[in-house]
Amino acid sequence: MNLIYLDNNATTMVAPEVVDAMLPYFTQEYGNPSSIYDLAHGANEAVKISREKVADFLGANEPKEIIFTSCGSESANMAIKGVLDVNRNKKHIITTRVEHPCVLNLYKDLEKRGYQVSWIDVDSKGDLNIGQLLELVTNDTALVSVMMANNETGTIYPVDKISEAVKMRNPETKVFVDGVQAAGKIPINLKDTKIDLFGISGHKFHAPKGVGALYVKKGTMLSPLVVGGHQEKGKRAGTENVPYIVGMACAAQLAKDSLNDELTRVKSLRDKLEKGILSNVKNAVLNSKSSNRVPNTTNIGFQYVEGELILLHLNDEGICASSGSACTSGSLEPSHVLRAQGVPFTSLHGSIRFSLSRYTTESEIDYTIEKLPLIIQKLVKISPFQKELNEIFK
Amino acid sequence: MNLIYLDNNATTMVAPEVVDAMLPYFTQEYGNPSSIYDLAHGANEAVKISREKVADFLGANEPKEIIFTSCGSESANMAIKGVLDVNRNKKHIITTRVEHPCVLNLYKDLEKRGYQVSWIDVDSKGDLNIGQLLELVTNDTALVSVMMANNETGTIYPVDKISEAVKMRNPETKVFVDGVQAAGKIPINLKDTKIDLFGISGHKFHAPKGVGALYVKKGTMLSPLVVGGHQEKGKRAGTENVPYIVGMACAAQLAKDSLNDELTRVKSLRDKLEKGILSNVKNAVLNSKSSNRVPNTTNIGFQYVEGELILLHLNDEGICASSGSACTSGSLEPSHVLRAQGVPFTSLHGSIRFSLSRYTTESEIDYTIEKLPLIIQKLVKISPFQKELNEIFK
Repeated sequence: MNLIYLDNNATTMVAPEVVDAMLPYFTQEYGNPSSIYDLAHGANEAVKISREKVADFLGANEPKEIIFTSCGSESANMAIKGVLDVNRNKKHIITTRVEHPCVLNLYKDLEKRGYQVSWIDVDSKGDLNIGQLLELVTNDTALVSVMMANNETGTIYPVDKISEAVKMRNPETKVFVDGVQAAGKIPINLKDTKIDLFGISGHKFHAPKGVGALYVKKGTMLSPLVVGGHQEKGKRAGTENVPYIVGMACAAQLAKDSLNDELTRVKSLRDKLEKGILSNVKNAVLNSKSSNRVPNTTNIGFQYVEGELILLHLNDEGICASSGSACTSGSLEPSHVLRAQGVPFTSLHGSIRFSLSRYTTESEIDYTIEKLPLIIQKLVKISPFQKELNEIFK
Repeated sequence: MNLIYLDNNATTMVAPEVVDAMLPYFTQEYGNPSSIYDLAHGANEAVKISREKVADFLGANEPKEIIFTSCGSESANMAIKGVLDVNRNKKHIITTRVEHPCVLNLYKDLEKRGYQVSWIDVDSKGDLNIGQLLELVTNDTALVSVMMANNETGTIYPVDKISEAVKMRNPETKVFVDGVQAAGKIPINLKDTKIDLFGISGHKFHAPKGVGALYVKKGTMLSPLVVGGHQEKGKRAGTENVPYIVGMACAAQLAKDSLNDELTRVKSLRDKLEKGILSNVKNAVLNSKSSNRVPNTTNIGFQYVEGELILLHLNDEGICASSGSACTSGSLEPSHVLRAQGVPFTSLHGSIRFSLSRYTTESEIDYTIEKLPLIIQKLVKISPFQKELNEIFK
């Protein structure tokens, strides 16, 4: 049985080209980029070129605006703690109710440490209340933090406009954007925005797990999270992860090159999957309702059935999907993103995210559209909510 | 020309077995370990087994004492900041003058943030003044931080005895040991010590750059450095770097298996190199003078010649060695480690570290012993210190 991987927002397969690009740096060009002999020059040069490629991918003004990190979580922690540390007199932060757990939990931690955090709502479509956000910006606002695309629903937030408007209200407020779920899915051009800090994670766009980057707009001061050696211009200590940096740069270039495919073919497959499910499954309800969405993601609630059971049955058919974020799985709490959107409990617990990639094929989508209704049918039969389901299916 | 790599304390070649062990986790077993479908089980299981192997490598009591990190610098930052954060009322730290820059610079940063740091001296052999250290332990001492083996000279510090003695004076003081240069070179058995925290870096023992671990003795409280998801039991957020974790575990096992080779064959090659240089080069002086040294390292000063020039000439002969740590290269400051030992300026600037590995062969050492005296001869001729050199060579 072939595997149908529809959980690309959790992690992705490393592109074969990326593996090929990395391999020489393990056993041949293995020098420490900081060393002075010839062996090290290859590694050093590779990091330099990779920085240029990632800068190009994000539309940065200069390669030196890119700091390599070990993951999206580190990028977020570095950005947030780093900016707050150099603005220690300001204690107000604005963020959204639908950030990724890595960002959300950090703000909860900061609340315990004396920061005042304002949590911005989303409407029933998942769109952000930008008016509410802007009204809260004061002289004491150190940081505004909004993700570019939501990992669970795919909703895109207009971070460029938000950053402009925030800076109009307080030019000293820093804007951090968690771009982890946007990179590789939609165009990014940071030099045309007022965004100060933008974090990405390689493994969401076919680089390996364990490498990320933080864009730091020229002139933005921040303290390092990992203090020590001179690497990354003193902003991030630790010997450079040369193979993964090369790999992420290769993945960035591949993602840039296939962005058109993402916005057309992948999008149409996602739409086909969505329509196929919604028209064939009577208790299916679309959670990804915003008109502004990344092309690869849909989130669908199945009323009165249990999400984990759906996932296990999909797994039996060789289909990988997820409920909520992988980083919260294991917890029995329903998705904070869907709750913020006001999704009723009747479909909240049975909500499934499907996230495609450029490797997704039409036959995989056809297979999923064929199998899923049969799974839901089976689960509807054993649901304790027969009366409610009869109403839906009558 | 074959490359003769004698800079294994800077970084190492990734072992081919490690590359083979990692490869399946890029394009086949690429699931997110937190996901619930079958694809993720392989990744999850691989992380579990790797944790057991690294625990075994360090002689930990339990696998859950091992936290995977992205590098030695992160391990140190996590240990130090994490312990200080849960003991915020204690403001005293004791460390040595010869720590690695990543640790040293962090303490310098903490001094600016209101911590009182006591810096312990070493004697002319490089051995630590343990009496001085113990006398400084008070009720206010949050942390004692001593490296296990010095990266520049190879000197081993008796961290097991130090941790015992520190705990006798103040059982609440935490002991962090930077074990980066010890792992793979000498036996480590943490369960028999009072060490609370012990950091290692994969790329110093033939795993890739970009992965490390922190041993946290059961019951030791510390705040996470990277806050976010539930990974590593909430102690380190971020999707697990499955390939590198598998790679580091494989490297740990290989290092454990070849420890005897390190302590015998590699040591005898190092001794041969050292004797060969000291007996053939009149202005050579041994800097690695401690009787207690890791088996792969020697540090030799060449009086009245410039270290960088020696390195460049060695490079021309295909030999990789270094002056100081790779993390400080680029700076013109002479080694803080050798200065702490009182090495005179006459040989300080011409000090070279040679660090071998299990891949080092006897013919490579013979070649180095043959070439180095010729290089020094050439440089002696152009040295501005002819009078002083004539005294030595007469």
